Amino acid sequence: MTITPPDLSVFETLESEVRSYCRSWPTVFDRAQGSRMYDEDGHTYLDFFAGAGSLNYGHNNPVLKRALIDYIERDGITHGLDMSTTAKRSFLEKFQSIILRPRDLPYKVMFPGPTGTNAVESALKLARKVKGRESIVSFTNAFHGMSLGSLAVTGNSFKRAGAGVPLVHGTPMPFDNYLQGRTPDFLWFERLLEDSGSGFNYPAAVIVETVQGEGGINVARAQWLRELADLCKRRDMLLIVDDIQMGCGRTGAFFSFEEAGIVPDIVTVSKSISGYGLPMALTLFKPELDVWEPGEHNGTFRGNNPAFVTAAATLDTYWADGQMEKQTLARGEVVETSLLAMADEHRRSIVSVRGRGLVWGVEFADKERATKVCARAFELGLIVETSGPQSEVVKLLPALTISTEQLDEGLRVLARAIRETA
Amino acid sequence: MTITPPDLSVFETLESEVRSYCRSWPTVFDRAQGSRMYDEDGHTYLDFFAGAGSLNYGHNNPVLKRALIDYIERDGITHGLDMSTTAKRSFLEKFQSIILRPRDLPYKVMFPGPTGTNAVESALKLARKVKGRESIVSFTNAFHGMSLGSLAVTGNSFKRAGAGVPLVHGTPMPFDNYLQGRTPDFLWFERLLEDSGSGFNYPAAVIVETVQGEGGINVARAQWLRELADLCKRRDMLLIVDDIQMGCGRTGAFFSFEEAGIVPDIVTVSKSISGYGLPMALTLFKPELDVWEPGEHNGTFRGNNPAFVTAAATLDTYWADGQMEKQTLARGEVVETSLLAMADEHRRSIVSVRGRGLVWGVEFADKERATKVCARAFELGLIVETSGPQSEVVKLLPALTISTEQLDEGLRVLARAIRETA
Amino acid sequence: MTITPPDLSVFETLESEVRSYCRSWPTVFDRAQGSRMYDEDGHTYLDFFAGAGSLNYGHNNPVLKRALIDYIERDGITHGLDMSTTAKRSFLEKFQSIILRPRDLPYKVMFPGPTGTNAVESALKLARKVKGRESIVSFTNAFHGMSLGSLAVTGNSFKRAGAGVPLVHGTPMPFDNYLQGRTPDFLWFERLLEDSGSGFNYPAAVIVETVQGEGGINVARAQWLRELADLCKRRDMLLIVDDIQMGCGRTGAFFSFEEAGIVPDIVTVSKSISGYGLPMALTLFKPELDVWEPGEHNGTFRGNNPAFVTAAATLDTYWADGQMEKQTLARGEVVETSLLAMADEHRRSIVSVRGRGLVWGVEFADKERATKVCARAFELGLIVETSGPQSEVVKLLPALTISTEQLDEGLRVLARAIRETA
Amino acid sequence: MTITPPDLSVFETLESEVRSYCRSWPTVFDRAQGSRMYDEDGHTYLDFFAGAGSLNYGHNNPVLKRALIDYIERDGITHGLDMSTTAKRSFLEKFQSIILRPRDLPYKVMFPGPTGTNAVESALKLARKVKGRESIVSFTNAFHGMSLGSLAVTGNSFKRAGAGVPLVHGTPMPFDNYLQGRTPDFLWFERLLEDSGSGFNYPAAVIVETVQGEGGINVARAQWLRELADLCKRRDMLLIVDDIQMGCGRTGAFFSFEEAGIVPDIVTVSKSISGYGLPMALTLFKPELDVWEPGEHNGTFRGNNPAFVTAAATLDTYWADGQMEKQTLARGEVVETSLLAMADEHRRSIVSVRGRGLVWGVEFADKERATKVCARAFELGLIVETSGPQSEVVKLLPALTISTEQLDEGLRVLARAIRETA
Repeated sequence: MTITPPDLSVFETLESEVRSYCRSWPTVFDRAQGSRMYDEDGHTYLDFFAGAGSLNYGHNNPVLKRALIDYIERDGITHGLDMSTTAKRSFLEKFQSIILRPRDLPYKVMFPGPTGTNAVESALKLARKVKGRESIVSFTNAFHGMSLGSLAVTGNSFKRAGAGVPLVHGTPMPFDNYLQGRTPDFLWFERLLEDSGSGFNYPAAVIVETVQGEGGINVARAQWLRELADLCKRRDMLLIVDDIQMGCGRTGAFFSFEEAGIVPDIVTVSKSISGYGLPMALTLFKPELDVWEPGEHNGTFRGNNPAFVTAAATLDTYWADGQMEKQTLARGEVVETSLLAMADEHRRSIVSVRGRGLVWGVEFADKERATKVCARAFELGLIVETSGPQSEVVKLLPALTISTEQLDEGLRVLARAIRETA
Repeated sequence: MTITPPDLSVFETLESEVRSYCRSWPTVFDRAQGSRMYDEDGHTYLDFFAGAGSLNYGHNNPVLKRALIDYIERDGITHGLDMSTTAKRSFLEKFQSIILRPRDLPYKVMFPGPTGTNAVESALKLARKVKGRESIVSFTNAFHGMSLGSLAVTGNSFKRAGAGVPLVHGTPMPFDNYLQGRTPDFLWFERLLEDSGSGFNYPAAVIVETVQGEGGINVARAQWLRELADLCKRRDMLLIVDDIQMGCGRTGAFFSFEEAGIVPDIVTVSKSISGYGLPMALTLFKPELDVWEPGEHNGTFRGNNPAFVTAAATLDTYWADGQMEKQTLARGEVVETSLLAMADEHRRSIVSVRGRGLVWGVEFADKERATKVCARAFELGLIVETSGPQSEVVKLLPALTISTEQLDEGLRVLARAIRETA
Repeated sequence: MTITPPDLSVFETLESEVRSYCRSWPTVFDRAQGSRMYDEDGHTYLDFFAGAGSLNYGHNNPVLKRALIDYIERDGITHGLDMSTTAKRSFLEKFQSIILRPRDLPYKVMFPGPTGTNAVESALKLARKVKGRESIVSFTNAFHGMSLGSLAVTGNSFKRAGAGVPLVHGTPMPFDNYLQGRTPDFLWFERLLEDSGSGFNYPAAVIVETVQGEGGINVARAQWLRELADLCKRRDMLLIVDDIQMGCGRTGAFFSFEEAGIVPDIVTVSKSISGYGLPMALTLFKPELDVWEPGEHNGTFRGNNPAFVTAAATLDTYWADGQMEKQTLARGEVVETSLLAMADEHRRSIVSVRGRGLVWGVEFADKERATKVCARAFELGLIVETSGPQSEVVKLLPALTISTEQLDEGLRVLARAIRETA
Repeated sequence: MTITPPDLSVFETLESEVRSYCRSWPTVFDRAQGSRMYDEDGHTYLDFFAGAGSLNYGHNNPVLKRALIDYIERDGITHGLDMSTTAKRSFLEKFQSIILRPRDLPYKVMFPGPTGTNAVESALKLARKVKGRESIVSFTNAFHGMSLGSLAVTGNSFKRAGAGVPLVHGTPMPFDNYLQGRTPDFLWFERLLEDSGSGFNYPAAVIVETVQGEGGINVARAQWLRELADLCKRRDMLLIVDDIQMGCGRTGAFFSFEEAGIVPDIVTVSKSISGYGLPMALTLFKPELDVWEPGEHNGTFRGNNPAFVTAAATLDTYWADGQMEKQTLARGEVVETSLLAMADEHRRSIVSVRGRGLVWGVEFADKERATKVCARAFELGLIVETSGPQSEVVKLLPALTISTEQLDEGLRVLARAIRETA
């Protein structure tokens, strides 16, 4: 077989050097279905990346696709700013009846713009307005977005440096297990808060991911989250859970914080909320926090109605009962068992295996190894990415709808890639 | 006829108070085609707003719709992050051959995320990185977006206050005609730059809209733009044209700055670039500025492939020859003539009529009047919005593809609304 | 005569490179009396610099010296923090009866620390607290001090760069005549204030020098100051006059703003307030602004009691009647006449002669010339310094107590230095 | 005996509400000698406050007084900016030969202005310039001054709030024992530094007091200081020791860091450096850090020559041999023994006794108690102040030159005041 290298010329000459994923997967993708992607040369790839968590229901999910095409066919409103539309109403009603009400979540819903960083920016604005303070606490290795407000609470120093201005008004605190049990949880944070001489700018809010995806699949324990929620309540800070990557069922339940039994003051949702990979984001908050003036935050694409249509379809299809959650947890156990076996096989190479639901990370002792594993996996037809501050973790984010056969297949390829990069 | 008030309850109880446009147009929209929108009760509206400039080719444009449905039907990649895809390649190639090359524009193309503020944030980051300075000059009544970086260069004090932190690193300069000819253009700006004792933080870049849409349809003269470009060059500042609302043909030419004959260092594009109202944005810059490291700026929805498909279709359909530009300029003359007649009729009420191509503003002496005119227009079936710092300007943004009959119809309704609010 | 070069070794090896004036005057001073300074080799210098305006009553003024020695001899409190002392009471009572009451100035008095920048820092803090806003307007070529708060409202870009952090929360406006009459005064400033879309961070206060000493002896017209005061009042901003260098009689009246008939909200005083060159500063403000909590601003040396003693002595000696003011104005006329004659003689070299009372500047067309003039003057036994952003102005700051003979002598030396550097 | 209340009217009507110490000690002081202060009504007070550490050699020390009066009598230069003077040379030479050289300290000397906050501001500027970073690490309960740069690294939230702008570019770390041994020293700090994903703005420098005076007499262990110095070296941060209150012999050795055997990169010195309570400050730094441009930092009173004279006299008198250090340590032991006895007597009231050399703190369980103790002590003729974030610590700062009798007397009064406030 002669392989013609893909024609990447226009990407290499016209597109900016800022492009990144395309460098790891040097081919030109054309089509996708479920957990399979196809490049223009007919090669098939199994997708364990799922659009960085934006494709929890797989690529071009047929149920959503049907709803989307019907909507487009009948000339439903496409671009609606924040006008009231039938598509938006349908989404809101379903979100209330299927998601919020059964979980006793009292949230109001804001459409802050089409992408995660819009949701984070709006959450931070709201918290600052409500509390009248500038500072926000975030956690080590957090990732919340690339616009200046979000970047200021993001940990990665390379991305922070890109700001070109000092990123202030944020203070990092240690994420769960960051100091490996060598200090009591929240000891430092609480001392700073209680001591009026600590020099700590008292925060309006704390923003946290329950599982840090970009940060290296760091999983916060439910207990830690509960203590954090309690600290926020006692110390008059709002708790913002950024559920952009971990929400929409990624960890099992619809919201990743449900397991801990906490009710954050503000929640950001994006990535898989539309279900089809269409740009959409939500900011949810307790009704007493809804102190926005009309138009105080806005955005051109905050009413992406085709996304509302597919979002509504995901709710009907996957969240009307507890099936999806159960399935995710079951699939997660499969992944965990498999990864633990690999860890057992490569005891000196694999430092840690960790995850929840269908998000898993495999950390390697040799920081370069994870990148090699992913590269080899790609050659073997598996799309999987690294994460962590030094890209030292292989991150598994298969679609929640992946079949057990595909899951096994992917895990087998991963095992082989690990073996072949030893 | 009995009119049942629309059922807005879920919007009023579940959606945040931040919603704004839906308050001006209290109905529930369902479908749209070209310049017509339809609410769920079967009422028809003529759209002179065009998604705040995101629907230059009308709602659900049939050519784009066909391409979009075909793409979805065949399971083309929907969500692609920054992977290379056939849809992206097709867009890039057409953008180069149809837009950039014929205009001798050497730009590289960056996909900064799906909405305008992502493009602005990336442009400011890049300028700061290239020049190693923090400060950016913007103009009075500028609007560049709602995330913190963009908001810092936006004029509106209400929106700025929403930030909850001091917005620094930006300095406003007077937009063209801001001081009504009572001072030479750029006198103050140039003195600040040339005087090492001025106390002015030397800027990395200047960001400007050629026509300020949100700011009140303030039109910069070509001569003023040329002098600004010259000043930037002489004084070692990058020139960023924010063409998010005024690009994609709104003023006639594809880029609004073409008329002035300038070549900005960086250009931001969004709103109508997909043509179908789908979230998409571009950051264009001279190749020597492409100092980005891979992944230094990123975003989940920067590869919205269905938007690439419709965007490519707009280029083929409307920009392969000069027809669209000519038509826009012709339609613009119709609007101008009509508005001047209204101004003539309401000499004491209408302070100014101004615009370029198919963006026009009518400023009223009584600051409340514009809001009343828009409200009356809506009752008469015309969707039109205000702009300006005190909402004192009626802003006309019809689709570029509007028929002459619809244009006349809208202008007649507007004339009537003005008369009936006297 | 054999001249042994002065032994500067310890300065050159041990003292930091930051030292500056000592480079212009490469000798070792030992004693001083009135307007004469003496170096250790017995050379005599006539002082037209007066400690950058800190020695308005000459070096080691005998009346003040007597009071100071008496106080030290009798073990009066030297260091008093902000304790009540008899020396402080005496100063306060005299300041009230001799300075404030006759001028109908209702000010309260704060001791903010011993130097000008302490006074400026406290003034800015107070203005921000009273108005609840962060931003301060300063003027082009302003100089207010070197600590971070003061530096942010200082114009000189070299000194600003020394901060090592971006200096924000300040915006420069054009000082009187900065744009040489090519724009109406305050046009730009007022537009920014009145337009809620201007993007201007609404300031808490405006800080201004009536004559910019470091900035190049730029003299604000009384009319301009009155318009500024009026603007501040109309637009709800506090007016801070920084009278550190120009107060204490330098321009004739005790406060430099008296001539304009304005009453600033806050006044900073330092340099010559102790009269003897001892560190001391005051912050004066209208009583309704005294919203300080006890200890909200403090400083170790805010109670420099020997300085209170000499300060009180200056009030008794020089300000109990109008003699000093008259003499300063008369001496100022002598200087002006003499400088105008020099300007007439060197029409192509001298661009401008300007000043008030006993502060005068001579600006040279050739930016290097002023430095040469000062260097030559030093060789001829006259101490005189440059100012202005490019050190293009020779600045005359003789003691107010200088004799007419010494004044003539100094002016003759200056004339010769100009001639000899042609 | 009839006691006439002191006439405080001018202080209460004319002086700002910001005054603080005078409220604790409601009398009018007139004279002072050694450790005794006298008010105008002839009452005598024993001073255990020593000008907040500015009067280490007692009030109006006769040796220094003689030198000072001689200098004034002979018309020595009083105000010298940064000109070379014989007084400055004399100080520099003695500082080098008596202080720096015997301790093998390679420092260059900068005169940053007359007060501590000038020294801190200059130290931070220099560190930022050298390292090209904005951020500075300070410690919980640090006090470094009240101008904006210094205030940003100061812990007290009440004083921080006075800034009126967000204080950024600083991050607090736990001071020694802040977390009472519940976490390894520097664990958190080091993790932040080593993890490129921590979100921590990498600091240019760390600023620390070896004993926190204002913060509550918190004593850093020598071992902790050594580890900090080592961390700074390993992690490329400059170490700044703020020795303004603890230097000049307060803890025994001339510099408070000598005991730990560390050599900070930058040292700030003020308060007792002149010895006579005259405003004076130094910034010391390793020669390779002397990257200042001439005049990049300046200040009107940086050349307070009478202070140089008394400063030189302190060096000759007290530091030419090791006598003073020995005496201070011996006196310190007396204080410690006495305080421990009090603590033993009041086991439930006194939480902690701590100190070094002649700086000691007594912390009370009841936060109000320390204030009551000081008030009662004042009635009994002893001047002593509180410190700590809640003023919960009685702070003992007697002159180093205090006689053993006076020391005993003061301690007896303190013991009585504690007893009488039980």
